Amino acid sequence: MDLQQELDYIQQHIPITANLGVEITSFDGDKIIISAPLEANKNLHGTAFGGSQAAIGILTGWALIYLKLKQLGINNDLVIQKSEYDFKKPVTANFTATCAFPNSETLDNFIQTLKEKGKSRISLTAEVESEKGICGVHQGLYVVFLK
Amino acid sequence: MDLQQELDYIQQHIPITANLGVEITSFDGDKIIISAPLEANKNLHGTAFGGSQAAIGILTGWALIYLKLKQLGINNDLVIQKSEYDFKKPVTANFTATCAFPNSETLDNFIQTLKEKGKSRISLTAEVESEKGICGVHQGLYVVFLK
Repeated sequence: MDLQQELDYIQQHIPITANLGVEITSFDGDKIIISAPLEANKNLHGTAFGGSQAAIGILTGWALIYLKLKQLGINNDLVIQKSEYDFKKPVTANFTATCAFPNSETLDNFIQTLKEKGKSRISLTAEVESEKGICGVHQGLYVVFLK
Repeated sequence: MDLQQELDYIQQHIPITANLGVEITSFDGDKIIISAPLEANKNLHGTAFGGSQAAIGILTGWALIYLKLKQLGINNDLVIQKSEYDFKKPVTANFTATCAFPNSETLDNFIQTLKEKGKSRISLTAEVESEKGICGVHQGLYVVFLK
């Protein structure tokens, strides 16, 4: 999977992701790491704006499912239903957001339900990390429909 | 209060807010309305990206407190501690986010605690509305420190 090509497609269709300056650092089928620059996302304190962090958290969970289902060749519509974000420490430098499927059983059930019922939900956690360690935690409930 | 001047300041210091295309439509001391265009915030479905909605919800609550404390001449540092967003309906057109202080007692207590203890918290709800009615609800817990 060509991650640069996937990123180009995402940035073309979700233009704000280009402004957020995100890049897909890695995706191995189970885990994704997205990186973002502080500069484009800074706030009045010179740390990362909470809205940027929440948006990148939402994007990271979404991108993990999006790329996984693409890898599996499953045509789908994917949306977020609910999101939460805990701001733990200020993000004082460039940062990453990391999201993984909780375990293979959860992933298998998610895919199985999608194939059988045409609709499936999964809750994912993304951790935002910077020079001070884990600075924020996103939790998102995502819903996917077979197309 | 010159809302265009306040917006210019916010967009200069939180540059992603310029990319989100937000404008401060109104602020009357108790309620703020922020508007945003669909185009800059669209996703693969042509509706508003969840990350943009969450970011604008966070910004709207933040801006209500920011402008209120500015109006009152209280120097402060203001951050978000926790946010939640419920995605109820797709946002299919330009949209607004509206946030008001729950009531005057809550606002008075918030200000009183800030003055007495140098720190205060307030929970605010912002509703994101578009042509289909209320499409999303942001809830944010904000913390403010006297400077």
